[in-house]
Amino acid sequence: MKIVITGGAGFLGQRLARRLLEQGSLTDAAGERRRISEIVLLDVVAAGGFSDSRLREVTGDIADPDLMRQVVDGNTASIFHLAAVVSGQAEADFDLGMRINLDASRQLLDVCRQLGHRPRVVFTSSVAVYGGRLPAMVDDETAREPQSSYGVQKAIGELLLCDYHRRGFIDGRVLRLPTISVRPGKPNKAASSFASGIIREPLNDVETVCPVSPESRLWLLSPRQAIASLIAGHELSDEALGQRRCVNLPGISVSVQEMVDALGRVAGASAVERIRWQADPVVQRIVGGWPAAWDTGRADVLGLAGDADFESIVRAYVEDDLPLAAKSSGQQS
Amino acid sequence: MKIVITGGAGFLGQRLARRLLEQGSLTDAAGERRRISEIVLLDVVAAGGFSDSRLREVTGDIADPDLMRQVVDGNTASIFHLAAVVSGQAEADFDLGMRINLDASRQLLDVCRQLGHRPRVVFTSSVAVYGGRLPAMVDDETAREPQSSYGVQKAIGELLLCDYHRRGFIDGRVLRLPTISVRPGKPNKAASSFASGIIREPLNDVETVCPVSPESRLWLLSPRQAIASLIAGHELSDEALGQRRCVNLPGISVSVQEMVDALGRVAGASAVERIRWQADPVVQRIVGGWPAAWDTGRADVLGLAGDADFESIVRAYVEDDLPLAAKSSGQQS
Ligand SMILES: NC(=O)c1ccc[n+]([C@@H]2O[C@H](COP(=O)([O-])OP(=O)(O)OC[C@H]3O[C@@H](n4cnc5c(N)ncnc54)[C@H](O)[C@@H]3O)[C@@H](O)[C@H]2O)c1
Ligand SMILES: NC(=O)c1ccc[n+]([C@@H]2O[C@H](COP(=O)([O-])OP(=O)(O)OC[C@H]3O[C@@H](n4cnc5c(N)ncnc54)[C@H](O)[C@@H]3O)[C@@H](O)[C@H]2O)c1
Repeated sequence: MKIVITGGAGFLGQRLARRLLEQGSLTDAAGERRRISEIVLLDVVAAGGFSDSRLREVTGDIADPDLMRQVVDGNTASIFHLAAVVSGQAEADFDLGMRINLDASRQLLDVCRQLGHRPRVVFTSSVAVYGGRLPAMVDDETAREPQSSYGVQKAIGELLLCDYHRRGFIDGRVLRLPTISVRPGKPNKAASSFASGIIREPLNDVETVCPVSPESRLWLLSPRQAIASLIAGHELSDEALGQRRCVNLPGISVSVQEMVDALGRVAGASAVERIRWQADPVVQRIVGGWPAAWDTGRADVLGLAGDADFESIVRAYVEDDLPLAAKSSGQQS
Repeated sequence: MKIVITGGAGFLGQRLARRLLEQGSLTDAAGERRRISEIVLLDVVAAGGFSDSRLREVTGDIADPDLMRQVVDGNTASIFHLAAVVSGQAEADFDLGMRINLDASRQLLDVCRQLGHRPRVVFTSSVAVYGGRLPAMVDDETAREPQSSYGVQKAIGELLLCDYHRRGFIDGRVLRLPTISVRPGKPNKAASSFASGIIREPLNDVETVCPVSPESRLWLLSPRQAIASLIAGHELSDEALGQRRCVNLPGISVSVQEMVDALGRVAGASAVERIRWQADPVVQRIVGGWPAAWDTGRADVLGLAGDADFESIVRAYVEDDLPLAAKSSGQQS
C-alpha cells in the first residue's frame, strides 16, 4: 500500500509519517488491513532524518501538476493532504494562499479523478472555516462563515472535496483540526502561534509574550492526539461517514489562564514568570472571533478522541518534544 | 456610469438590461444617483433586439481573461455577474461547470481586484447552495451543504466574493435566488424546469409533463420581482449589508397543487388538463431535498420584496410574456 503525505516535511506530516512507519499497516478501501509498502513525503522542503527504506522524500511544489502526477499515481491508495500555507501567511500574501491552499488542492483532486481508482483522501481543514455570527454551540452542522482568506480557502477545499467524493472521484474525508498545542519549534505566522509559545518557550527557559487576555478561551488538540485522529479518520469506513464527509475533531476548551496554571503545575512558578502579558489588539480580535463552545458528539460516535485535559498535553510535550528541543538548542550553542 | 452584465443575453440578463435602460440611473459606491451611460451585455450569444445607444453587446466567453479585462475596465462602476452554466448542465459536464461557474467567476473577481477602484459586484447565487440535513427553517445563517456540482460552484463563488469583499477588492453582494417561475421560452436542463413548464406550456396550449407529486413544495420568485430584487440589492448601501454579504431573497412557498389551482383560476380547466402527471424519481428526489420552509426576515428588513401570491405570478406572466410567446410562435408557424 502506497501512501502520499503532502506537506509531509511539516510539523504534522513528519509525525504522521513516523507513526505510520511504526504501525506498519493501514486499512484500504475494501476494508482490508494492508502492509504499508511506501510513504512519499511531498514537500517544498526536505524533512531529513528518516532512515526507513519504505520512506521516500520528494522535494517540490504541490502546485506543479507534473510533479503531482508523478507522485500521486495508480498505486497510490491513500493521500493525506496536509500541505498548506498557514493563516497569517495566507492573509499577508493573498495570491500565495490561493495558489497553494486552493488551486493546488483542487489539482490534487483532479489528479485523483483522472486516476480513476477512487483513492482515499484525508484533508486537514481547520476551525478557521467558522466565524462571523456563531451559534452558542458549534457542531458539524454549523455554517462555514470564514473571516480570513485561509479559512475561505479551507472552506472551499472542503466543498470541492465533498463534491469530488459525491461524484465518486475519490473517497474523501475532511478532518477539522482545533488549534494544535503544544507545537514544538519556532513561533510561526499563525494568529494562534502563542497557544504553543506560552507553554513551549517557558519550558525551554525562553521569555515569551502572551498577546491575549487570561480569560481568552482556546480549543486545543495535542500533536499526539492530532496524529491519532488523522489515522483514525483514515480508517473510518466509507459508510460510517455517509454523506457527511467533514468532521470537527474533538478538542478541549481551555482559557489561557488554565493553560498557564497547568504550566505552573508541571514546571513551577519560574516557568510562568517567563510569560510577559502584552495585549495585541489584532490577535485578541481574531481569537475573540473563534467559537466559544463546541459539540463534537459526532466525532465521539465515530470514535475520534481528544485529550483528557491541558495538563496532560503539557506533560506529553515534555515527554515527546522537550528532550529533542534541549538537544537541538544544545547543538546550536 | 458604466455597467456590465455577464450572461446579459440570458433570461434575467436581458430583462435586467431593459429595466435599467428604462429607469436610466443607479446609485454609485458614494451613494449618489448617477445616470447610466453604458450597459455592456457580455455573453457567448447575442441578445439582439436592443435599439438603445447606451447598450453594447460583446459576444465571447467569460472564461477568456483578455476579453474580461477589455470589458471590465476602470470605468466600470458595477457588474451584475449572471453568466452561469445551469444545474443540470453543471452536473452532466463537470469540467464545464467548474470552468464557467468557478474559474470564470474567480477571474472576474481578480480583474476587479487588479482595477483597484472597488467596483460593485452583484452575484446571483441560488438556493442550490443548501441541501443535506436541513433545519426546519432555512435562513441567512443556515449552513451551505450543496448536493450538486452547481450548488458547490455557487457556494464557492459566494465564499470568494465575500473574501474579495472583506479584503476591500470589491463591494460585493450575493443574492440567492429562489426558483424563478414563470420563466418564458423553452424548458432548460435545470431540475426545476417543470416549475415554469407546468404553467407556461398550458397557457401556450402545449402539453407538458409534471415530474413531481402535487404535494411537492417549491420556493418561487417571479421574473419581475427577481429583477426588482437584483436592482434593489445593488442599491443597498455597503453599511446596510455590513459583513454579511449573502442574502436569501424572499420567495413564496407553494405546493405544485396550489400552482396548478392558480393556473386553473387564471386560464380554466382546459389549461390544467394540458398537464400530464408522470413521476420522475430523479427529479422528485432532487426537489424533495430542497428546503421546506424559509425565514427571509433579513431580506424584509433590507427592503427586498417577493411576490404576493402565485396567482399574481401567473397573471404577471400572462401580461409580460404571453403576448411575446404568442407572437414568436406565430412567426414560427
Ligand atoms: N497545526 C495546527 O494548529 C493546524 C490547525 C488546523 C489545521 N492545520 C492544517 O494541518 C495541516 C498541517 O499543518 P502543520 O501544522 O503540519 O503545518 P506546517 O506548516 O508545519 O506544514 C505544512 C507543510 O506544507 C508544506 N508546503 C507549503 N507549501 C507547499 C507547496 N507549495 N508544496 C509542497 N509543500 C508545501 C510546508 O513546507 C510545510 O512543511 C495544514 O493543512 C494545516 O492547515 C493545522
Ligand atoms: N432562473 C432561475 O431560476 C435561477 C435561480 C437561481 C439562480 N439563478 C442564477 O441567475 C443567473 C441568471 O440566470 P438565468 O435564468 O438568466 O440563466 P440563463 O441561462 O438564461 O442565462 C445565463 C447566461 O449566461 C450565458 N453564459 C453561459 N456561459 C457563458 C460563458 N462562458 N461566457 C459568457 N456567457 C455565458 C448564457 O449564454 C446565458 O445567456 C445565473 O447565474 C443563474 O445561476 C437563476
